[in-house]
Amino acid sequence: MSTEKSVVRRILEAARAAGREALTAPEARGICEAYGINIPQEGVATTGAEAVQLASNIGFPVVMKIVSPQILHKTEAGGVLVGVRSADEVANGFATIVESARKYDPKAEVQGVQIQQMLTGGHEVIIGAVTDPAFGKLVAFGMGGVLVEVLKDITFRLAPATAEDALSMLDGIQAAEILRGVRGAKPVDREALASMIQRVSTLVADFPEIAELDLNPVFATDRGATAADVRVVLNFNPAPARYRPEQKRIVEQMNRIMRPKAVAVIGASAETGKIGNSVMKNLINGGYQGTIYPIHPSADSILGKKAYKSVKDVPEEIDVAVFAIPAKFVPQALMEVGEKKIPGAVLIPSGFAETGNVKGQQELIEIGRKYGVRLMGPNIYGFYYTPANLCATFCTAYDVKGKAALSSQSGGIGMAIIGFSRSAKMGVSAIVGLGNKSDIDEDDLLTFFEQDDNTQIIAQHCEDLKDGRGFAEVAKRVSRKKPVVVLKAGRTSMGARAASSHTGALAGNDKIYEDVFKQSGVIRARSLRDLLEFARGIPVLPTPKGNNVVIITGAGGSGVLLSDACVDNGLSLMAMPQDLDAAFRKFIPPFGAAGNPVDITGGEPPTTYQNTVRLGLEDPRIHALILGYWHTIITPPMVFARLMVEVVDQMRAKGIEKPVVASLAGDVEVEEAAEYLYQHGIPAYAYSTEIPVAVLGAKYKWARGAGLIPSG
Amino acid sequence: MSTEKSVVRRILEAARAAGREALTAPEARGICEAYGINIPQEGVATTGAEAVQLASNIGFPVVMKIVSPQILHKTEAGGVLVGVRSADEVANGFATIVESARKYDPKAEVQGVQIQQMLTGGHEVIIGAVTDPAFGKLVAFGMGGVLVEVLKDITFRLAPATAEDALSMLDGIQAAEILRGVRGAKPVDREALASMIQRVSTLVADFPEIAELDLNPVFATDRGATAADVRVVLNFNPAPARYRPEQKRIVEQMNRIMRPKAVAVIGASAETGKIGNSVMKNLINGGYQGTIYPIHPSADSILGKKAYKSVKDVPEEIDVAVFAIPAKFVPQALMEVGEKKIPGAVLIPSGFAETGNVKGQQELIEIGRKYGVRLMGPNIYGFYYTPANLCATFCTAYDVKGKAALSSQSGGIGMAIIGFSRSAKMGVSAIVGLGNKSDIDEDDLLTFFEQDDNTQIIAQHCEDLKDGRGFAEVAKRVSRKKPVVVLKAGRTSMGARAASSHTGALAGNDKIYEDVFKQSGVIRARSLRDLLEFARGIPVLPTPKGNNVVIITGAGGSGVLLSDACVDNGLSLMAMPQDLDAAFRKFIPPFGAAGNPVDITGGEPPTTYQNTVRLGLEDPRIHALILGYWHTIITPPMVFARLMVEVVDQMRAKGIEKPVVASLAGDVEVEEAAEYLYQHGIPAYAYSTEIPVAVLGAKYKWARGAGLIPSG
Repeated sequence: MSTEKSVVRRILEAARAAGREALTAPEARGICEAYGINIPQEGVATTGAEAVQLASNIGFPVVMKIVSPQILHKTEAGGVLVGVRSADEVANGFATIVESARKYDPKAEVQGVQIQQMLTGGHEVIIGAVTDPAFGKLVAFGMGGVLVEVLKDITFRLAPATAEDALSMLDGIQAAEILRGVRGAKPVDREALASMIQRVSTLVADFPEIAELDLNPVFATDRGATAADVRVVLNFNPAPARYRPEQKRIVEQMNRIMRPKAVAVIGASAETGKIGNSVMKNLINGGYQGTIYPIHPSADSILGKKAYKSVKDVPEEIDVAVFAIPAKFVPQALMEVGEKKIPGAVLIPSGFAETGNVKGQQELIEIGRKYGVRLMGPNIYGFYYTPANLCATFCTAYDVKGKAALSSQSGGIGMAIIGFSRSAKMGVSAIVGLGNKSDIDEDDLLTFFEQDDNTQIIAQHCEDLKDGRGFAEVAKRVSRKKPVVVLKAGRTSMGARAASSHTGALAGNDKIYEDVFKQSGVIRARSLRDLLEFARGIPVLPTPKGNNVVIITGAGGSGVLLSDACVDNGLSLMAMPQDLDAAFRKFIPPFGAAGNPVDITGGEPPTTYQNTVRLGLEDPRIHALILGYWHTIITPPMVFARLMVEVVDQMRAKGIEKPVVASLAGDVEVEEAAEYLYQHGIPAYAYSTEIPVAVLGAKYKWARGAGLIPSG
Repeated sequence: MSTEKSVVRRILEAARAAGREALTAPEARGICEAYGINIPQEGVATTGAEAVQLASNIGFPVVMKIVSPQILHKTEAGGVLVGVRSADEVANGFATIVESARKYDPKAEVQGVQIQQMLTGGHEVIIGAVTDPAFGKLVAFGMGGVLVEVLKDITFRLAPATAEDALSMLDGIQAAEILRGVRGAKPVDREALASMIQRVSTLVADFPEIAELDLNPVFATDRGATAADVRVVLNFNPAPARYRPEQKRIVEQMNRIMRPKAVAVIGASAETGKIGNSVMKNLINGGYQGTIYPIHPSADSILGKKAYKSVKDVPEEIDVAVFAIPAKFVPQALMEVGEKKIPGAVLIPSGFAETGNVKGQQELIEIGRKYGVRLMGPNIYGFYYTPANLCATFCTAYDVKGKAALSSQSGGIGMAIIGFSRSAKMGVSAIVGLGNKSDIDEDDLLTFFEQDDNTQIIAQHCEDLKDGRGFAEVAKRVSRKKPVVVLKAGRTSMGARAASSHTGALAGNDKIYEDVFKQSGVIRARSLRDLLEFARGIPVLPTPKGNNVVIITGAGGSGVLLSDACVDNGLSLMAMPQDLDAAFRKFIPPFGAAGNPVDITGGEPPTTYQNTVRLGLEDPRIHALILGYWHTIITPPMVFARLMVEVVDQMRAKGIEKPVVASLAGDVEVEEAAEYLYQHGIPAYAYSTEIPVAVLGAKYKWARGAGLIPSG
């Protein structure tokens, strides 16, 4: 243990021994000093001369305060002087303070007068740390005063934070501009502030018993940062960490669960309307090619498959057991699954934590842990894995194959995924219900999909994260390879209330989710449709190679709305270089608008779209195109659509791949054109300027988060 | 003229006479005093005794400043003292200042020392006024310092503002809470602040030559408000106001234009592919029952209708002339239209301001004004008025009748309206292209649709408002009768740039549009889809009678997302009274969630939806319902849909009408159910929790803006 750590350890142990849940001011100063967190210089003087000496060393102005164990209300006792500016004033001040204190309480033991550096100028900021039930230690940063208290202008990062994380926090608040210096003020010393943030984050990560820490205010000037006040709250009984197997083990087990060679259906039934019957039919009719073992107390065979009384009676290896029995029979059957060494249990039954039966759910968790069985659910619809034609669910069978893997905490949302996916011909690799998340959760799925070649994007609906930190760590790794999109429900405080009555989950401060998602490269969907449209569109689009977006539009009106949408989605409209502007102008009428959007005007023939889009794809300075189509007799919708696909395909054959999205304004024929474009790699939407740009924006967010292109 | 006005008039005339564009400090003080705007008390003392007397009258502390025409840099000259707290200090200060000034410039004429009330405490706020090119005089309010400068936390109202407008501004900023008192601070004197806002707004409305006015800072305390500094900028050459006929005249002419008995087509053609041919075909095939006069230089008849060389040759009265001729022929034909006393010209041709031909457009405006012809366009697709089967356009014919009137500045957006409307079976009463808006603009349309019984809602797309003030005044009146929805494109700064390259329109600060729309009861759509969905959904929904919204959901997950959407859309989830909670509980399983959302859980039969929705409609404390449907085998989509329509119809028969919207989560069959629900008065959306709530939210915004229910 390093010296710094042993100093802090000693201070904390003393507090623990004394049964205290907060540190005293000197203790708090002690841990700050140990971790190199700047605090005001100070010392205690026992004579006027000593006070003058101390103050001269510290530098004027200083604050002077009586030190006496008996005097708690120092100001009331006349024991405080602020803004003391000279040696003379210090000498006089010492005498005054001691005299006042003696008068105030003649019996008080006066130990001396504290001389403290007085902080002035610069900006007051707040640096803190909290322990979040889902994310554990987080470091926080905000501007002091009303900005953080009224406008809630604060930002969080997982602790420990990297130097880059810490610096990003200075830009993570709305009022970031203030720190860069406004109204003639000097910019703050960013390195000093970031360093203090990082030190705080390291401290709380090193010592989990530090539950909360506040440096408030911190004076940030152009020459450094000093924490004027420190507050530390302790908790020596932290919540136990959620169980997390090793990554290798997760991959092994999840691969057997998601791509099983053999499936047991516990509670299989021949009777239509029973869940165990629906599961059997879905497995069989879905086209699953592995072995299916119906488990039933008495039947010899179900739907033509030989049945067994228990999984233990099956002579061959089983990879996953789907439960379709009432809650009360689950524990016994789960033990048998454990004894049979089946790595996964899909717990469709409800009647556990969601109905208040927390104990019953805990029992399942313990059995699962004992036998090393991973649990999906309970209270779920099951899951689909289309590459194996596997529908391990009682819901509709689903067979539209694609590259998007989706999951939902709620069954209703799962059904919406199925409907949308089928309707939009999106296709999926997997749809997974997570329900009560007694064990398997979002990060287990991420770990599986990370190495699943059938999946290119992972989109998840959740109401809470049982292990936010685990999720963030895994997401940070996975999102660099494959886009991760999350719809976090219970986003608003009213929504969060509903979430907690629904699952008993404690939804944290939404800003924490916002910041941690960003820190982890996760794309946040703001609505169900966004989640679905992003899952559909992101894998279709090639990854852009840079930030320059160009709009080419037949309808000037669409161009304006598409530009609005670019700003809303953080896209950069390219400042059009003169030569490129001239090149575009060759193809468009003289009254077409210059710059970006390229407004080719409404009355143009197909060749104008063709020429301008080809130019946009060919010029290496342009990285993405947004098309605004206007339905006219001269260029009908399907003529436009076929031509665009042709141009994009020609370029692809030459090795040029850029994301292209389209907004189609026109009569109903544009719907067919939009579908044709989408099926050929150009996400296109009728009657909307905002959705295509949001999809492109999501692709950009991912590419930036994954470090593939610089931040816009 | 009142005394106050004559004081201000005199000050302004003096400035005009002196050729000045700003007021001096005493002049600015003078107009503040005339309009009862509190400024610090002050006076000039020529002796120390006078100074003491003055300061005693004003109250301590005071600021003292040398008064000398020769001394411009008062501080440098040692001529300023702040925070002077007693009679003695004033007496000494007087001597010090005069002495310092003499030393600084022995030749300077010392006229005395200004004694000024020193403002301290409270909050620094800003009250100002600007002249916007579209909206004219606006009054502004914000918090001082970084909040307004960095966070742009400012709010605007049209001047003159009512007392209610002025008070609403205090809540119109993000940091509103500060004014109500945070961290133990006293709340500001709201009446005093609002009164100052109102006085400023009256002043600038009374005197158009006051181009800009700044009270910055204003010290707002719990006992009043005082403007510490006043700045006034003048402009004696204001832009001329846009031409606006009287309301009665607008209604007369617009009724003849939109519901004509006879239409002339100037440039009618028998040749397929020509615009004049498309217009003729659309009129005839669209089923228009009035008389059609083709105008053509040589033809005897076109498409079976007798043709004329000029409108002047037509013996009967004509109500509107549709132009389908090249730009260069338009002025001559327009003069003939004027001579024929036709009240309206629909100018389809392009080639005017949008291509840089501003002069050509100005010529049309002058001809129109001379003859009293109202001009629609130029550079438009024309218009549709379905109650008269009138398609006065070269675009697709359109015949789906409904109660929504839409307009667009851009042709592309017009086509999107047609496509969406047809696809969604929305139906419209009118679709109008406004293009360059040389004359007829959004407020003329509002004035017409206000009294058009075929229209229940007006939805408009615009990139700018040529006469924002005219629009706001009309919209304020109309929106109390019929909902007015506006999609303002060029909303973001990047978008605003594109708008200005498209139409040459100067897009103002978006916050101005935001606030004025709100002040005028206009519902703002944030996207094209929102505009379209609001136009579709608002007329379908009955007006709610209060703010209590209840969510009834089969899918708990949808309930959480619907709650999020309620917060996003400013809806109030009703706090469920105990007796009502108990009443709901009777219908739902014991593990269904309490409160609001009412979570009936997923496995329930149709009767559970039926019973709970009936209860929700019957209980008078509930004002609107949001349904979350979860597709199950027990309650299939169409069973749910038919049942909901039945329940709503039963209640309607009993005189109970409440807005109900639905979110459907399920497989593709929910799309049919959504359409069925929508056609029967329940706006319903598949795979979306956000859109139905946004539509309900828009209805609420309208009802609140129109004063039908209190603000949430």
